Amino acid sequence: MKVGGLLASAGINIGLCVLFLSLYSILRKQPQNVKVYFGRRIAEEHNRLRDAFILERFVPSPSWIVKSLRCTEDEILETAGLDAVVFNRILVFSIRIFSLAAILCVFGVLPLNYFGQDMHHVRIPSASLETFTIGNMQERSRWLWVHCVVLYIISAVACMLLYLEYKHIARLRLSYISRATSNPSYFTVLVRGIPKSSTESFSRTVESFFTKYHASSYLSHQVVCKVGKVQKIVSGAKKVYRKFRHFKGTTVDQRCRTITLQCCFCGASSNSFQLLPSDFEQESEKPDVNDSSLILPDEECGAAFVFFKTRYAALVVAKILQTANPMRWVTSLAPERDDIYWSNLWLPYKQIWIRHIATLLGSIVFMFLFLMPVTFIQGLTQLEQLQQRLPFLRGILEKNYMTQLITGYLPSVILQIFLYTVPPTMMLFSTLEGPISHSERKKSACCKVLYFTIWNVFFVNVLSGSAISQVIALSSPKEIPMQLARAVPVQATFFTTYVLTSGWASLSSELMQLFALTWNFIRKYILRMKEDDFLYSFPYHTEVPKVLLFGLLGFTCSVLAPLILPFLLIYFCLGYVVYRNQFLNVYCTKYDTGGLYWPIAHNTTIFSLVLTQIICLGVFGLKESPVAVGFTVPLIIFTLLFYQYCRKRHLPLFKTFPAQNLIDMDKEDQQMGRMEDLHERLHSAYFQFPDMEDVPLEGFHTVGRDEDGSGTSGESSHKESTNGNDDPKDDLSHPTLDGLPVSRLRNVVKSLATILRPQRGELPV
Amino acid sequence: MKVGGLLASAGINIGLCVLFLSLYSILRKQPQNVKVYFGRRIAEEHNRLRDAFILERFVPSPSWIVKSLRCTEDEILETAGLDAVVFNRILVFSIRIFSLAAILCVFGVLPLNYFGQDMHHVRIPSASLETFTIGNMQERSRWLWVHCVVLYIISAVACMLLYLEYKHIARLRLSYISRATSNPSYFTVLVRGIPKSSTESFSRTVESFFTKYHASSYLSHQVVCKVGKVQKIVSGAKKVYRKFRHFKGTTVDQRCRTITLQCCFCGASSNSFQLLPSDFEQESEKPDVNDSSLILPDEECGAAFVFFKTRYAALVVAKILQTANPMRWVTSLAPERDDIYWSNLWLPYKQIWIRHIATLLGSIVFMFLFLMPVTFIQGLTQLEQLQQRLPFLRGILEKNYMTQLITGYLPSVILQIFLYTVPPTMMLFSTLEGPISHSERKKSACCKVLYFTIWNVFFVNVLSGSAISQVIALSSPKEIPMQLARAVPVQATFFTTYVLTSGWASLSSELMQLFALTWNFIRKYILRMKEDDFLYSFPYHTEVPKVLLFGLLGFTCSVLAPLILPFLLIYFCLGYVVYRNQFLNVYCTKYDTGGLYWPIAHNTTIFSLVLTQIICLGVFGLKESPVAVGFTVPLIIFTLLFYQYCRKRHLPLFKTFPAQNLIDMDKEDQQMGRMEDLHERLHSAYFQFPDMEDVPLEGFHTVGRDEDGSGTSGESSHKESTNGNDDPKDDLSHPTLDGLPVSRLRNVVKSLATILRPQRGELPV
Repeated sequence: MKVGGLLASAGINIGLCVLFLSLYSILRKQPQNVKVYFGRRIAEEHNRLRDAFILERFVPSPSWIVKSLRCTEDEILETAGLDAVVFNRILVFSIRIFSLAAILCVFGVLPLNYFGQDMHHVRIPSASLETFTIGNMQERSRWLWVHCVVLYIISAVACMLLYLEYKHIARLRLSYISRATSNPSYFTVLVRGIPKSSTESFSRTVESFFTKYHASSYLSHQVVCKVGKVQKIVSGAKKVYRKFRHFKGTTVDQRCRTITLQCCFCGASSNSFQLLPSDFEQESEKPDVNDSSLILPDEECGAAFVFFKTRYAALVVAKILQTANPMRWVTSLAPERDDIYWSNLWLPYKQIWIRHIATLLGSIVFMFLFLMPVTFIQGLTQLEQLQQRLPFLRGILEKNYMTQLITGYLPSVILQIFLYTVPPTMMLFSTLEGPISHSERKKSACCKVLYFTIWNVFFVNVLSGSAISQVIALSSPKEIPMQLARAVPVQATFFTTYVLTSGWASLSSELMQLFALTWNFIRKYILRMKEDDFLYSFPYHTEVPKVLLFGLLGFTCSVLAPLILPFLLIYFCLGYVVYRNQFLNVYCTKYDTGGLYWPIAHNTTIFSLVLTQIICLGVFGLKESPVAVGFTVPLIIFTLLFYQYCRKRHLPLFKTFPAQNLIDMDKEDQQMGRMEDLHERLHSAYFQFPDMEDVPLEGFHTVGRDEDGSGTSGESSHKESTNGNDDPKDDLSHPTLDGLPVSRLRNVVKSLATILRPQRGELPV
Repeated sequence: MKVGGLLASAGINIGLCVLFLSLYSILRKQPQNVKVYFGRRIAEEHNRLRDAFILERFVPSPSWIVKSLRCTEDEILETAGLDAVVFNRILVFSIRIFSLAAILCVFGVLPLNYFGQDMHHVRIPSASLETFTIGNMQERSRWLWVHCVVLYIISAVACMLLYLEYKHIARLRLSYISRATSNPSYFTVLVRGIPKSSTESFSRTVESFFTKYHASSYLSHQVVCKVGKVQKIVSGAKKVYRKFRHFKGTTVDQRCRTITLQCCFCGASSNSFQLLPSDFEQESEKPDVNDSSLILPDEECGAAFVFFKTRYAALVVAKILQTANPMRWVTSLAPERDDIYWSNLWLPYKQIWIRHIATLLGSIVFMFLFLMPVTFIQGLTQLEQLQQRLPFLRGILEKNYMTQLITGYLPSVILQIFLYTVPPTMMLFSTLEGPISHSERKKSACCKVLYFTIWNVFFVNVLSGSAISQVIALSSPKEIPMQLARAVPVQATFFTTYVLTSGWASLSSELMQLFALTWNFIRKYILRMKEDDFLYSFPYHTEVPKVLLFGLLGFTCSVLAPLILPFLLIYFCLGYVVYRNQFLNVYCTKYDTGGLYWPIAHNTTIFSLVLTQIICLGVFGLKESPVAVGFTVPLIIFTLLFYQYCRKRHLPLFKTFPAQNLIDMDKEDQQMGRMEDLHERLHSAYFQFPDMEDVPLEGFHTVGRDEDGSGTSGESSHKESTNGNDDPKDDLSHPTLDGLPVSRLRNVVKSLATILRPQRGELPV
């Protein structure tokens, strides 16, 4: 590929970016899109933008960029949680290190590479991009020490910055822990693998165990119920209710009957339905859904939330092995109420390890199946091969601009399209793994997508050739540095265009929210439905791997092919602005891992650094510079030592909570007399079907949420259920309830609760 | 190698074995050897054998074998601890699985191999051993399914037996935990990384931290002191004392002066010595060695023993992360008093991770340096190569019996001699690693020796060729099964002789205690010194890897070259008898890991199984039997699944204590009113210098023990300090104190304690 081709690609992308950004700055001012672009703010701040027609609305303006840049870290922490701050810090780290790398490499290394060989230099636009890589250096060149020194500087500064970030985020995590004083999850332990007793119910078993062994700190407990049937009926009823929503004239009773029929259709037993119309008002006067008699005894499952008097006591129980059988009475700190992934709670704990292994195998198989499209793309960058295989293309490819387009642009686009299928698949795998919280599921999917991306975008592209020859190439570990050293400078062109297409374009589409925008348009003007909220939570599992992959590309190419760095730097800066804007306006934070994405980012960056150093080792070896090789080996060792130090120094804090802080919080609460109040609130914190008198539909949403997730949570299509807020008041003013008599809704819910209440001898099948 | 050669080798070894066993049965009856062969029983049971001269003493008898076989597992548990039982179970498991394997392979597989090819069979004694291996099978043989089925049976039965053993040992560990009711280590937490304060002493810091955060369960604490100087003076004094022991006429004062001079010689300050003779009796009336004023404030180090009211509280504090900085207030359950490795306690905790990495690197370098002698041995088995290189040997090697001797016997002997240097080196590495207990050090050394042995005895010998070509062979992972498949049947001869020489002979020498016997003889009849005790603790770090290596050889050779199995089975049976005898009579259990050797054995066995399956996969591939290959792959997967299941099901119990059992113990003690008593005893349990009024020389021995260990703890030379018993009464009647006025000894100790007491302004340098 020539410099001209690269510039063409850059031109197209810059044009697209400017177009999208301008479009965004106009679209965001249109009142009909307000829910697409300000979903979070509307949901949380209850604002409404004025709906006047003024010219200003159609003029692009950069004000949103200024707003995004002005907002402080504390504001992000406040509005979007610690994970958002961590993501922000990853971008800040990337901008810092790649600014330095860009300056050093573009002004120090690039000229050396370009003038590395005594050759006739053509005009720069038609010069091959490879003349800018280290491949252009002569063997045994006296100037290779510059590359080595630059590598040292980049590694050292990267480690220093990483350490500072780790320290900063550890401090944030600590204050995050300490600030959440009223968080009921700190008092709650999720117990799984409760042994089944033939004489006692699960509830009795739990009570007797904890009163026997943790009497001083045990408060109460709540057994998790398997709500498979309940869930089906409820979501069926929900659908029907939505359909019949427009018939405002129908009475409650009529609607109730409709639901009843629907339940019959979908196969649920109806043996208690005849009683309903008559006893309806009396029976459902105050449906005590928390009453354990509501739940069939058979449907209790071997999991329970156990509440403790202090946070420290809960931590202790969560961390200590309870009995001699590690598969029973498995304890862990409970996730927050909104974070719980209910349908996984009633998986038998014994299954979990098999599920882990199965999904691991599944992911690996998927990774290797994916080699096929990647191999095809590989063919596109090597145009000569393609022409040989598909001779009819020769006519098209003879035109110069077509060649440039195809080599510079098309491969990335195709790869990109295939990559869109990856996050939903990995999310599905993570769901099957059996995590107990949404955040854990997302984090697990994030790791899977990360490994996948690094393997399929970096390694497979670098170790070019057919799918099978790549595996063979990797099966000889001693050869890997040499292989990489030969391949990375050659593939730098592809990576540069990948940054342009995948990076820049994906930022624009992220900003534009194309999917949500289109869907909003279709709903509003074609289906003429009432507009819906667009409250997604931030897709960490796609964005974190993306940013980290670009970091990896930056590090590995930095010294060897520095031309990628300016483009990468622009990507990170743009990303910084865009993502901050999205955090502030679009995404809603429903659950938070408490900064657990940082260790992933840290480890990946260290991996990138070490990989860079190994590749440089190979390159220096190929260039026959023993001094540079000799100096690179200790650098690798020092980087690994640094990694080990960070593991010892900071990682434990990200795996557990420190006792000191929890005890301090407990003491403060006791001194202030807040403990009683906290204990009161604990009892209702983890209701599987929260009290419907206060929180209409809350139980439904929690249950209903189990069904979205995996299938629909792709790159830009993760719509998750939106009504999982903690505060009942928020729910009452919730837009989905707008214009609907809440009392009616309540009645529907009550009737359902009554249907589900088992009558002796009449258990629904 | 021919069958004749193998039989010659077996003949030599059987002869040697019978000779040694007969010799042992005579020598053990000689009164002068009683301390060599009954060290433990004399030390613990205070028996003395009658010293009469009767003929019976010179007739070999098998009575000891009967006694060894008759003793039950409970007796071993009683006398030698849980680790001994675990070692015993490893042998039992090996005997069981290899009995089955021997029957299946010798009667099922061996004939198939022998008649595998249409060839002229010579007389068996001069048949090559390779005709008995799978190498003799024809390609695409119809009979390979027998090998596959046998592999399946062996794997399945091995997994089943492993599971039963794991379960059994887990139960034993539980009862081991529950039985040690008065063990003070359960109440004690070792805290390291105590932050240094400029205003407070370590003691105050510890007290304020634990009274603040664990007030309800905290009892007291004791800061560890750095006793480098004290230790030097004391051990110097000890030596002198021993020398002057025979001068019975000297008075206490005189002896005291002698010690004083010695101390001057070895460079300790003597500024307070002049006071001694006059104030001696008064000052040392009751030397309160526990008084913290005895210790120089500067010598306190950032580690302390903290005592808690209940076992559960101690466990909780040990397992929970205390503060936000994981390098400070690092807690772990304290080892038992006799198990503590004092000189590592005052290592700064921050160093530990570097030490770990450094010793890891050191061990790896050592492993590769060791390739050199192994390569030399490799040359011996390939006699033609040797003759080419060293032509002068040709004359000797022309004699047939010499060839047989050299190929069949010498290589193993040389390898054996080199291997004797390994355990002390690995013990040294493990010491440098910074473990806090003797048992942890020995376990770590055991792992290192195990990896070393498997790498250097198995892999390097199998992947024959020069040292460098082996590394290259291993650097291509896809080739490994094929490489192994080609090499293992060929190398089976070497392994068979290795079992004969290293296995059988080492058992005989273990039984004979050659080193101790010789040393006893020299002391008694040449140096004419008073006879010393031979109280060693069992060398798990040499014996466990040895047994596991033979297991590995057995599994890998079983299907491929079954001729090794009978010899191996004899080894295990002999080992069973010998080791039980040694546990009952010779070795003294001073510390116990509580069964932690079992997970090592389990993992190694699984590794052996999977390795066997991979090698068979390669062999079936070479023999072009796709059916057998297809059936072996799921077997590997099932074995790995089994491993993962055991990890989940049993391993956690070996990493911590279950809360349930500890709480039960606490409750029982509280109900029985024993708690007060236990708390009382806690205060004196971890004295660094125990109260000398009651336990003479105890402090000395504890301190002195720091110096033996690493250097001298090789294969048969780990003599460890003998006076670390808990019970003072045992010490009083201790043989080393025989015929010595205890009161005088006490005075010496008192005077030393007074010397060491710092006087204001007069600190010894």
